Parts: sequence; structure tokens; C-alpha cells
Amino acid sequence: MFVIDILDHGKNNKLIHANKDVPIPGDGDVLIDIKASGVNRPDILQRYGLHPPPPGSPSHPGLEVSGIVMDLGKNVKKFKKGDHVIALLGGGGYAEYCISNQYLTLPMPDNLTFVEAAAIPETYFTVWNNVFRIGNLVKNETILIHGGSSGIGTTAIQIAKEFGAHVITTTSEKEKVEKCYELGADLVVNYNSHDFVEEIKSSEFNEVNLILDIVAGDYTSRNYELAAMYARIIQIAYIKGSNVNLDLSPLMRKSLIHTGSVLRPKNLSYKTAISIDIEKYILPKIRNNKIRPIIHSTFDLREADAAHSLMKSGRHFGKIILTQ
Amino acid sequence: MFVIDILDHGKNNKLIHANKDVPIPGDGDVLIDIKASGVNRPDILQRYGLHPPPPGSPSHPGLEVSGIVMDLGKNVKKFKKGDHVIALLGGGGYAEYCISNQYLTLPMPDNLTFVEAAAIPETYFTVWNNVFRIGNLVKNETILIHGGSSGIGTTAIQIAKEFGAHVITTTSEKEKVEKCYELGADLVVNYNSHDFVEEIKSSEFNEVNLILDIVAGDYTSRNYELAAMYARIIQIAYIKGSNVNLDLSPLMRKSLIHTGSVLRPKNLSYKTAISIDIEKYILPKIRNNKIRPIIHSTFDLREADAAHSLMKSGRHFGKIILTQ
Repeated sequence: MFVIDILDHGKNNKLIHANKDVPIPGDGDVLIDIKASGVNRPDILQRYGLHPPPPGSPSHPGLEVSGIVMDLGKNVKKFKKGDHVIALLGGGGYAEYCISNQYLTLPMPDNLTFVEAAAIPETYFTVWNNVFRIGNLVKNETILIHGGSSGIGTTAIQIAKEFGAHVITTTSEKEKVEKCYELGADLVVNYNSHDFVEEIKSSEFNEVNLILDIVAGDYTSRNYELAAMYARIIQIAYIKGSNVNLDLSPLMRKSLIHTGSVLRPKNLSYKTAISIDIEKYILPKIRNNKIRPIIHSTFDLREADAAHSLMKSGRHFGKIILTQ
Repeated sequence: MFVIDILDHGKNNKLIHANKDVPIPGDGDVLIDIKASGVNRPDILQRYGLHPPPPGSPSHPGLEVSGIVMDLGKNVKKFKKGDHVIALLGGGGYAEYCISNQYLTLPMPDNLTFVEAAAIPETYFTVWNNVFRIGNLVKNETILIHGGSSGIGTTAIQIAKEFGAHVITTTSEKEKVEKCYELGADLVVNYNSHDFVEEIKSSEFNEVNLILDIVAGDYTSRNYELAAMYARIIQIAYIKGSNVNLDLSPLMRKSLIHTGSVLRPKNLSYKTAISIDIEKYILPKIRNNKIRPIIHSTFDLREADAAHSLMKSGRHFGKIILTQ
């Protein structure tokens, strides 16, 4: 089968067209004929050797797909051949076929295209896990989502709003600001023209209970400044770098919780718990059009490199999807 | 009544002998004839204006006492006049008498002297809250306690060991190292002669699940380095300063939780929850001599300033107590 693989993980990495055997589903696995694959920032980190696939996962990139079940391993009760599904993968989504554990495979909502459906697993699992399971966001709390225009951002704005939180987000450019408001944000700060700490402190919200942060760098101390008593600050990336200068006194004084997570290396039972939540709490809201994946653009799988270039540019709003 | 008060909170602060009216117990309060008062590092911070008493608490220092119930406010069912008690205070322990809320007052274990009993409230409440309620330490986990010779340290070593954890602690000087082993520590690192990261990494423990830290400064990044997956790092002071240079990537990669707390400004219901735990889980172990307050030395209340000088010197092992 055709796959996009990585040559020379590191500084001189490049994406190449390659061939691999169609994988054979093991006990509890399904074989998926991939129709669309989500592009994620960790795919680019993987090119640099910074986000390796966990043991047992394919070495070629791709963390999420939509497609059709082609074959079943032993002990698969949840699906039959021909089912339309979405799946969270440890790797291998940039390909014609992939293997997925049945517990990390979910029925594809009927009202979505394959392109829209492929945008769900990685970001929805990540947002649900960090905002609700780790961050314990509850109704009427205020959440600050940095990077509102990213796949994570567009997902988090909608889910947090739908579950009754007040939503603040940061983004750049006037057009993206407007789109974040359309997704349901209560306050959007353009970080290019405004200081987000000042804007939030002078707003009706004043402080925030949960911060979902993909930025780090100088944002970290500013996050501490905005945090309310008992606020949770959750680190899921560090676009501005992981090295920070920090005054820890607000952490103590306000009993803050600073934590973070990386989904990919977590084990099956950890990810299955999230999967059960997604099927129970999120898929019904997608079927009812309360929440929807936001697609920026699609590329043919063979043009994965161009898709990565767009993602690195930061010009997109929502997800970038590979099709075949 | 005689009290020790603070003149000129700030750089030129000093402790003075003063007189105040004997306080009158309000609804749910008891009046205590103080026999002994614990000295705590926050008392020194208070002199510099850095640890103010919460609203409603006396302005003179003192966070914990032992003594005899002299009078009862309305609706006090838990105690009668003449009871020997210990109490956690918002302030006012450096005095002849104090008022304490009944829920933060506990029966004094019969097998302790007033001096020993006065050493319990502040450190035992703090350790229990941070290690068990916030930090969720469970049996067979490994805890690292920085500053094993402090009041907090000598308490935490004993409680963590008694509840089934592996206990590592840091301290200075050979004599203190030996005393920490006597209290039950499994590994004691002399930070003057050894690097605690290297010592722990090369020990049978290798990594730690919970860190109770009073140091901060350069210890913070080293705490992150030693932390196991899902470890909790709990900041309860920052003797080396609250400003840190930190790489956040271990926080994300290992799903660490970095948090902290300050007990004094917390409200009554928060402190009452801890008080209930102390009465249920800790006092029986003190009565059975499984855990004991470690007293370094006593000073007459009138010599509080000398007691503070000793605390600042760091030469003590265990608690410093004021008597009258």
C-alpha cells in the first residue's frame, strides 16, 4: 500500500512516497480503508525525531483517520465490515490502510463527510482529556484557550461553550477573531494588537479558572497572573519554547495546579477511558450539529508536505486534512 | 493580657512586649489559656508584612497553641471548661490567651506535654493537607521531603512512613542526617556534600512520586528531573526564592502536577475538613506513640525574638516552642 514516510528524522528530514505491506489486524483490531487523515502539529515534530511513535505503532506519521472497516481481527464485536468509522492511532494514518484498536475506533457520525470526520479523533480526544478529565472544567467557570484558530482551539471553544463554560480565546488577525466569536467564544483577544492579560483583567471575566495552553514561553508567567484561586493551567504544547522564567509565588498563594499531558505515549486503558467519554458525550452533540469539526483545507495525501508547510505558516483556521 | 506584637512590619520590624484585652469567645469559639505556642517560619514572614493574618484574626503572631479551655462561646458542644486542647489559629498564639474556633480545636493527647502538643497544629495540618489531601500519596509510593530537619520535615517523614510510603529526605550536617534516619526515612541526602538528584537516581528508588518542597529556586528544575510519571510536586515555601528557570517539557511528558498551597488564608470549611482528618487519622497514632512531635528547644514567650533568631539560623532539628 502507499504510505507517506519520513526520511532522515532530524534537521534534514523529508516526507517521501513509499510502499509498505497492508497490515493484518490482530486480536481486537480492525483494518480500515482510509478515506481521510488529519494533519497535526505533532506530525511535524515527528519529522524532527521529537514525537516518536509508541512501541507497536507504525513508523510513518498520522494520528487520526476516517474510513471504512475492511477486515476484523479476533474478538471484535463492536464493528462489522463496511462500517464507517473514525480512529485515534499511535501512528500510520498517512497511508491507504491502517490498523486500529476497536476501543479507539468510533462510529462515524452520519451527518459528517469523511473529511470532516477525520478531523475529530486527535483534537477531540486531546481537548476532552485535558479540559474535562484532567482540568475538571465545570459549568459557569471561565476557560482561556490560547491559539483559538488551531484545530485544538476551534474544538475547545465549541466543547467548552457547549458544556456551559465562559470561553476566552487568543488568536491573531481580525478575520480569525471574528471566526472565533462565530464558534461561540465570549471574548477573543487579538494577541498581535492587544495584551491578553490587560484585556481579560479589564473585561467582565477579570480572571480565569482553567487555561489550555499551547504556547508556554513568556505566556506562562502571564497565565499565572490571570489565574483565579484554584485555577488549573494545562500545558499541551510549547510553541514559544518550554524554557520559562517563572515566579512560583502565585502557584502557592492561589493554590494553582500546573500540569500537562501528551496523549500519544499513553497506554490503551488510558486512551479507552477518553474514547468512552467521546462516544457518550461528544458524538451525540456532533450528530445534533451542536459541535462541528472546522476544516480549513484539504490536500491529496501525496501532497502531505504542502499540508505541513501550511500548518507551519500558522495561516490556517481549523484543521488541515489529507484525502485520497 | 500579655502579648508579643510586631512593630513596623517591614524591613525595620521588631517584636515588642504589649498588652491587649483578653478576647471574648464568639459563637462557636473557645477561650484558651495558652500554655505553649509553636514558632513557625511564617511568623517571621509576618514581621516583614509578607504573611498577614486573615480578616478577623488577631494582628499579633502565633499560628498554634496548646492550653486549657477557660470559657465557651454559644453553641460549643465539643468542649467544656478545663479541657486540655490544641488549636490551629489564624494568628494570636504569642499571648496569654487566645480565641479558637471549636472545629479547629482538638483534644490534646494525654501522653504529650503542653510543649509537645503545641508543636502539632500548624505542621500536622500543613503536612496532612499537602501530602494526602492535595498530593494523594498512597502506600508504596516514594515521597521526597526537602528540609527533613524542619518542623514540617520531621512531621512529614513520620506521617508518610507511618502511612506506608518510601521516604527520602534532604538535610544538612551529619548529625541531622542520622536523626532523619531515626525518624524513619529510608534515604537521607546531605545536600551540603551530595547532589540529591544523583543520589536518588543511583539509589534503589531512582525516581519519586511526590515532592514536598520548601526550597524552590534551583531545586524546582531538579524536582522535575526526579519526578516519576504522574508525580506531584507541592510547593509550600520557597526558601531559595520563588523565581525559577524551568524547562516545562518534563511537566508535559510525565504528566506532572505542580501545585502548592498556603494554609492561613483558607476559609473555615477548608480547614475544618483537615481538622476532621487529623482527629481521625493522626491523633490516634500520636496517642499510640507511632508518631511524635519533635521538639528542638523552648523559649519563654518573652524571649520570642531569640526563638526567631534560632529559626532563621537553621540550626534547629524539629520545632521551637514558646512557653509561659
